[in-house]
Amino acid sequence: MCGIFGTFNAERAAEQTLMGLHGIQHRAVDFAGIATGDGTYIHLHTGADVARRVFANPDTLNKLHGRHALGHIRYGTSKKTADDKFRDNTQPIKGWYNNQEFALAHNGNLNNLVELQQLLGKPLMTTMDTEYIVRLLQKWQTGDLAADLKRVTSVLRGSYTMCLLFPDRLVAVQDPSNCHPLCLGKRDDSYFISSESCTFGGIDADFVRDIEPGEILCISSDGLQSHTYATPRRKQCRFELNYYSLPTSQTFGKPVDEYRIELGKLLERHCPAEGADIVTSVPDSANFIAVGYGENKRSGISRQVIIRNHYVGRSFIQESQAKRDTAVANKFSFSAHAIKGKKIVVVDDSIVRGTTLLKIVAKLRRYGAKEIHLRSASPPIKNPCLYGIDTPSHEELLCSGDINPEHVAYALGADSLMFLPLEVQKAMSPNPGNFCHACMDGNYWH
Amino acid sequence: MCGIFGTFNAERAAEQTLMGLHGIQHRAVDFAGIATGDGTYIHLHTGADVARRVFANPDTLNKLHGRHALGHIRYGTSKKTADDKFRDNTQPIKGWYNNQEFALAHNGNLNNLVELQQLLGKPLMTTMDTEYIVRLLQKWQTGDLAADLKRVTSVLRGSYTMCLLFPDRLVAVQDPSNCHPLCLGKRDDSYFISSESCTFGGIDADFVRDIEPGEILCISSDGLQSHTYATPRRKQCRFELNYYSLPTSQTFGKPVDEYRIELGKLLERHCPAEGADIVTSVPDSANFIAVGYGENKRSGISRQVIIRNHYVGRSFIQESQAKRDTAVANKFSFSAHAIKGKKIVVVDDSIVRGTTLLKIVAKLRRYGAKEIHLRSASPPIKNPCLYGIDTPSHEELLCSGDINPEHVAYALGADSLMFLPLEVQKAMSPNPGNFCHACMDGNYWH
Amino acid sequence: MCGIFGTFNAERAAEQTLMGLHGIQHRAVDFAGIATGDGTYIHLHTGADVARRVFANPDTLNKLHGRHALGHIRYGTSKKTADDKFRDNTQPIKGWYNNQEFALAHNGNLNNLVELQQLLGKPLMTTMDTEYIVRLLQKWQTGDLAADLKRVTSVLRGSYTMCLLFPDRLVAVQDPSNCHPLCLGKRDDSYFISSESCTFGGIDADFVRDIEPGEILCISSDGLQSHTYATPRRKQCRFELNYYSLPTSQTFGKPVDEYRIELGKLLERHCPAEGADIVTSVPDSANFIAVGYGENKRSGISRQVIIRNHYVGRSFIQESQAKRDTAVANKFSFSAHAIKGKKIVVVDDSIVRGTTLLKIVAKLRRYGAKEIHLRSASPPIKNPCLYGIDTPSHEELLCSGDINPEHVAYALGADSLMFLPLEVQKAMSPNPGNFCHACMDGNYWH
Amino acid sequence: MCGIFGTFNAERAAEQTLMGLHGIQHRAVDFAGIATGDGTYIHLHTGADVARRVFANPDTLNKLHGRHALGHIRYGTSKKTADDKFRDNTQPIKGWYNNQEFALAHNGNLNNLVELQQLLGKPLMTTMDTEYIVRLLQKWQTGDLAADLKRVTSVLRGSYTMCLLFPDRLVAVQDPSNCHPLCLGKRDDSYFISSESCTFGGIDADFVRDIEPGEILCISSDGLQSHTYATPRRKQCRFELNYYSLPTSQTFGKPVDEYRIELGKLLERHCPAEGADIVTSVPDSANFIAVGYGENKRSGISRQVIIRNHYVGRSFIQESQAKRDTAVANKFSFSAHAIKGKKIVVVDDSIVRGTTLLKIVAKLRRYGAKEIHLRSASPPIKNPCLYGIDTPSHEELLCSGDINPEHVAYALGADSLMFLPLEVQKAMSPNPGNFCHACMDGNYWH
Repeated sequence: MCGIFGTFNAERAAEQTLMGLHGIQHRAVDFAGIATGDGTYIHLHTGADVARRVFANPDTLNKLHGRHALGHIRYGTSKKTADDKFRDNTQPIKGWYNNQEFALAHNGNLNNLVELQQLLGKPLMTTMDTEYIVRLLQKWQTGDLAADLKRVTSVLRGSYTMCLLFPDRLVAVQDPSNCHPLCLGKRDDSYFISSESCTFGGIDADFVRDIEPGEILCISSDGLQSHTYATPRRKQCRFELNYYSLPTSQTFGKPVDEYRIELGKLLERHCPAEGADIVTSVPDSANFIAVGYGENKRSGISRQVIIRNHYVGRSFIQESQAKRDTAVANKFSFSAHAIKGKKIVVVDDSIVRGTTLLKIVAKLRRYGAKEIHLRSASPPIKNPCLYGIDTPSHEELLCSGDINPEHVAYALGADSLMFLPLEVQKAMSPNPGNFCHACMDGNYWH
Repeated sequence: MCGIFGTFNAERAAEQTLMGLHGIQHRAVDFAGIATGDGTYIHLHTGADVARRVFANPDTLNKLHGRHALGHIRYGTSKKTADDKFRDNTQPIKGWYNNQEFALAHNGNLNNLVELQQLLGKPLMTTMDTEYIVRLLQKWQTGDLAADLKRVTSVLRGSYTMCLLFPDRLVAVQDPSNCHPLCLGKRDDSYFISSESCTFGGIDADFVRDIEPGEILCISSDGLQSHTYATPRRKQCRFELNYYSLPTSQTFGKPVDEYRIELGKLLERHCPAEGADIVTSVPDSANFIAVGYGENKRSGISRQVIIRNHYVGRSFIQESQAKRDTAVANKFSFSAHAIKGKKIVVVDDSIVRGTTLLKIVAKLRRYGAKEIHLRSASPPIKNPCLYGIDTPSHEELLCSGDINPEHVAYALGADSLMFLPLEVQKAMSPNPGNFCHACMDGNYWH
Repeated sequence: MCGIFGTFNAERAAEQTLMGLHGIQHRAVDFAGIATGDGTYIHLHTGADVARRVFANPDTLNKLHGRHALGHIRYGTSKKTADDKFRDNTQPIKGWYNNQEFALAHNGNLNNLVELQQLLGKPLMTTMDTEYIVRLLQKWQTGDLAADLKRVTSVLRGSYTMCLLFPDRLVAVQDPSNCHPLCLGKRDDSYFISSESCTFGGIDADFVRDIEPGEILCISSDGLQSHTYATPRRKQCRFELNYYSLPTSQTFGKPVDEYRIELGKLLERHCPAEGADIVTSVPDSANFIAVGYGENKRSGISRQVIIRNHYVGRSFIQESQAKRDTAVANKFSFSAHAIKGKKIVVVDDSIVRGTTLLKIVAKLRRYGAKEIHLRSASPPIKNPCLYGIDTPSHEELLCSGDINPEHVAYALGADSLMFLPLEVQKAMSPNPGNFCHACMDGNYWH
Repeated sequence: MCGIFGTFNAERAAEQTLMGLHGIQHRAVDFAGIATGDGTYIHLHTGADVARRVFANPDTLNKLHGRHALGHIRYGTSKKTADDKFRDNTQPIKGWYNNQEFALAHNGNLNNLVELQQLLGKPLMTTMDTEYIVRLLQKWQTGDLAADLKRVTSVLRGSYTMCLLFPDRLVAVQDPSNCHPLCLGKRDDSYFISSESCTFGGIDADFVRDIEPGEILCISSDGLQSHTYATPRRKQCRFELNYYSLPTSQTFGKPVDEYRIELGKLLERHCPAEGADIVTSVPDSANFIAVGYGENKRSGISRQVIIRNHYVGRSFIQESQAKRDTAVANKFSFSAHAIKGKKIVVVDDSIVRGTTLLKIVAKLRRYGAKEIHLRSASPPIKNPCLYGIDTPSHEELLCSGDINPEHVAYALGADSLMFLPLEVQKAMSPNPGNFCHACMDGNYWH
């Protein structure tokens, strides 16, 4: 996963952008970069850490001149680690267009790399698929940016939510699938582009609207200009709502916290746990889901008995299995007195590898939980994501293939396990076809 | 504030202790140290950062040999910064007793420094009051440790929850006031001493009991030996329950989460906000209080509209005003859609400087909150703490002197402000005299 | 001062280049950078430190792909410090030419910045004069590199020894004045460009020849192509021979060690110190001069009584006066027993600020030297350099204006001081007009 | 090897001591530590790097209070690396004596570890033999320091030049063998103890005298008190004069530079190289030897054709073979023009592993040297040192066993190789028995 934040026409644009990246830091923690545009040049700094550490030295921000900026955060999966050691796989990536430098940041994943390589006809500098977009735009530049972007995007397969910074302009591009979110904010004469709307509060900006699928939005001193370069074919990522986005964001038109409370209610309706004493969540992504689940009190009273330690990062996006184990041991604190002798429902947003749940169940047992009932707010995750979410391969997915929930419950040490039915998940949206459920139903697109 | 964690008879005791310190990291973030006992010697490493960073280099832990360990975390107030620059003001502090080195860690504050200086008759090495305990024990050593500790503690005024590590023993001492918590945990043949019981889960240990006021507990290969060196005169810190302890801890015999839910109910009963739409908390210390406040739904529905960013530290214990401002701007995310047009109750554990609340109210207004009603789960904090909590001087306390809640509400930009009445606060305990409310009522003791 | 090292067609070109920069590290210690060309792209890394520290992390070199490379070292004078804090004033600088990136490294100083600014018509990205060369080449690019370089260099005033790296080519340019050296080395099919020939030994390459004044030398897979773009008007920097170059280099056709021995002999002939016991040098630049001075033993026996500590840098290129003072105190060790009661001749290459000499004389006095006679192998340095040597302004030059050597000797605490006569200095070269002596005689050129 | 520097009664004693350590940094580069005494306490800081880097943070020095100090530098041999990773093997080591802390720094090597372990009867904290001295002094303390030191030293076998710091005193101890040097300096009312006298100049102190073999020198506010605790049996290390000491030091009563010039003359007399053109040294240890060798010009003219780069450390004391190889490649620069076609004599202080010489000969060949004649100013080094010099084991010594110089010359690629005859080496001192030549003749003592 990645995160994008752009700033147009603001004092200390690099600082604003750093605050923006900080606000979506939950999306990726391994690499961060900021490019700025000073009207004439693009300045760039990137590094390997969370954003506020990459830019901890004030001189680093001092050297990023200009009123416009583009930031990116990125994580490195284990598969990519070797690449990341031998290539400067950070974003934004700089390119050259029409006698100006530009920088590009991308959230998504491209799936026709062989074809793109043939079109480009020369090697890449990095090992990031993103670079094909930069190089093809360089190669095919005519000076008509909208037309050139249309041509370049027409050969891309996959998801490619992105933002381009020129020395004097900021350009947001949403792919026709709208797979990952991108939205526009405003504060006085300044504009902001962000992966999630939750960032706007920190800089006192207001959410304006989403970038539409198939839209190119150019922000310059001439104001905003919107171009439609492709017909929308929405395939919005279900995981963005279920897991990725911060609850304070409004994603795909939905307030995420409200969506998750509703999701929790549906989960309880279809997967109740009658007779349970307590409903808790795996912090923090499932907090609002558990609130919804506990609302009618049929399946236990809502009560948080697992508390997240403030001094660690998010487990889903850590690198190796070994690291993840330690992280789990270090990241949660359990309310021993509230657990002992209780029948407990643990609500999680989804079950991917199951690593965290396995340890949580073991801890709850240790604390004397009488029964442990797991409820997954997503249907079984059976297939890897091809569109930018770091779900693992089939081998590592706990629920790939035909699985029996009882067996999985047994494997996890729980008394029961229920998944939100796929049809209920789909029915949450009036037009289920507007969402991508490939990781659940295998219906890949493009 | 400080935190203490001790380990007796465990493999890799330094690592166990690091996990313990990590589990109480919310108590102090500026300095961390671990001493180990290998049967013959005391090994020590300390540094200025959160514990997991001070001990991030594996070689550092590798060099801390022994099956026994003692860890300490400490914060540096702005007042102490200059001292901390010119003195090695970290703990545990090493001393010498009966031909053995020992290390001592202290949570509390001593108030008779002039007298202690006269008794010691020579300068200190650090500028920490803790060192008087170390030096007097050195000076008065007879070889009878319990007797010597009794003599030393008899001249101390203030609070001095502490733990001593000898190469082959661990000794916990609770002062007669029991001002700050200290408890015993156990796992097989290993024993643990911790400021809070929340740490035990991370290392699969069980909470056994609190160290009693006036108790010296020696843990050695001969087992546990308890000595009563002074008559208990409990003055337990109310802030430990209201704010400091993690909700998963059991402090002064009370499960903290349950205590706070109860506190929230009382707050709502005495300080309702009828007609409000939503009850939210200032994350994370007031979360359970807000749950209690919202339970009967008379004063709004419980709904978290302020989310804490995972990638920053706790504001209360940051150093300068300037840093605190930035921290506040960076640490919260607001659910804009849920706030707009709503009458919102914001529950906080207490109002100390008011800095954070001021900014939160401003943000809520910006997001279009219709009304904002502040509810403080503590009575007004009017006096500085003399017993180890870093409350500021009278000048910096927002509510020092005779204050009018309406004026404070106005100053904070809120529509109303109500404090839990002092008598209600006191009545929460069957024996209110067992608690210290000096910061609220000015009744200092000793 | 700066240093340049380029590599064409070598395995691990970045490493070769790092070794090259290390070999000329005496020329500048504050910033270092290496760009590589992989046939398609330019990779770049720069930082603030000596080269081996900037590239100490192996991953940094791992990411600099390609068989061609260009390195640069640079110092930051006190005047430039503020700039360096707010601008990324490191080299090589990247630009764009004919649909390819390139990187440029420059040794020298340009003096017609106002004119260059007008020609460029837009601001710079850095505050280095070097960038004008990059930007004008971008602006005026036609695809005929030699012609474009000719046009760009035709508007430059000052010195501009430089090297350009394209993804597949290395281009060396010497300005008509030949003010600073630049030479070509070869090892099998690999070529190297270096500020000084002393670097070639470390990589087992052979010195081939100097780049000629007014020459553009393109090194590509087609071999070497030389273009003459301007008529030579040699103004070779005398300081390069007297002070800057390493004794093992061959600079301006002269083996530097031999030149300095000869310089020492001339100095002794014209500025003897009859009756002296010992001739020593200020290490290390004047070592060979002192050898020459002591050869005929008329003015004392050659004997090194001042030894340089290995663990500090070169004083001339340290930043502030304060730092220089400490550096001097830390960098020399004196042979007390050899100094006591002796009449000592101290040979220095030149007297710029006089700071170091002042302290050396004081130390020698402290050790009981009977007489101290200073001999400067350069005539008085009266004027700042406009061509790239970091000599200070008139105010800071000890010998600016009409000075009386006796007064200067008194100021420095010495018994006598003699300077090599200007005419002798000039007569060392068959064509004295081929050398720049502006710092000595004020004859600025261009 | 190690280095010791002590300060008594000086402002900012820690800084003075840091300058002292810096002045003997050539003796060891891996670890550095400084303890200070403030009249009541011992403060200590140690780390792994050269001294000026270990103490680069000004706060570190700020926290080392007191007018008395003791510093130590130490290197870690490859054999010791694993130990150094798991133990805090830095010095000074703190102990406890007579109700006071003290710190001890040691230069030398103890050889009766089994016996010392039995005497101590408990494990060490570190893996440094030095700690036995600390612990035995603790164990046997009576309050009569001179008597206690006499008792402790009476059981030590090997060399143990050392210095102890108490909060208010500095105590220097020289072992009866005087194997390694230790001397006394003075500046006004301040006293200094140093491994070498070369350090005194940097702090404007004067050399007073050596600490005598078998002497304990106590420096306190009562002045200097000298005790003789053992009968001298001098076994002064020949390597200290031949290689280790800085030329500006006066070691074992000999100005080192003068000694080495004399050594060079003797070498030339017994091992001439008639017909050679040039005499050069392996920088920097053999510089003065080469000056002596070239003096009569019979075996070539003295001319330095190998120049040491300022930006690397000393090769003898680098860790692994691999690192040493790179270091050699990076540390020298060769005067190509002066070498070509010449018959060159290369003078080295000794031949230990031969690694450096092998590469130097190869480089000289590459530069076209016609003949290369090696001359070693030490007889063949055949045996490991048991007294504190890091010579390698028999396997790694190039000249262990019965060697034929011609074969060694062939192995090194030279045309000839001659060693100073052992009897000539011994005859340099009026009482050869006062020196240890065990590495040359195998006569180990004790």
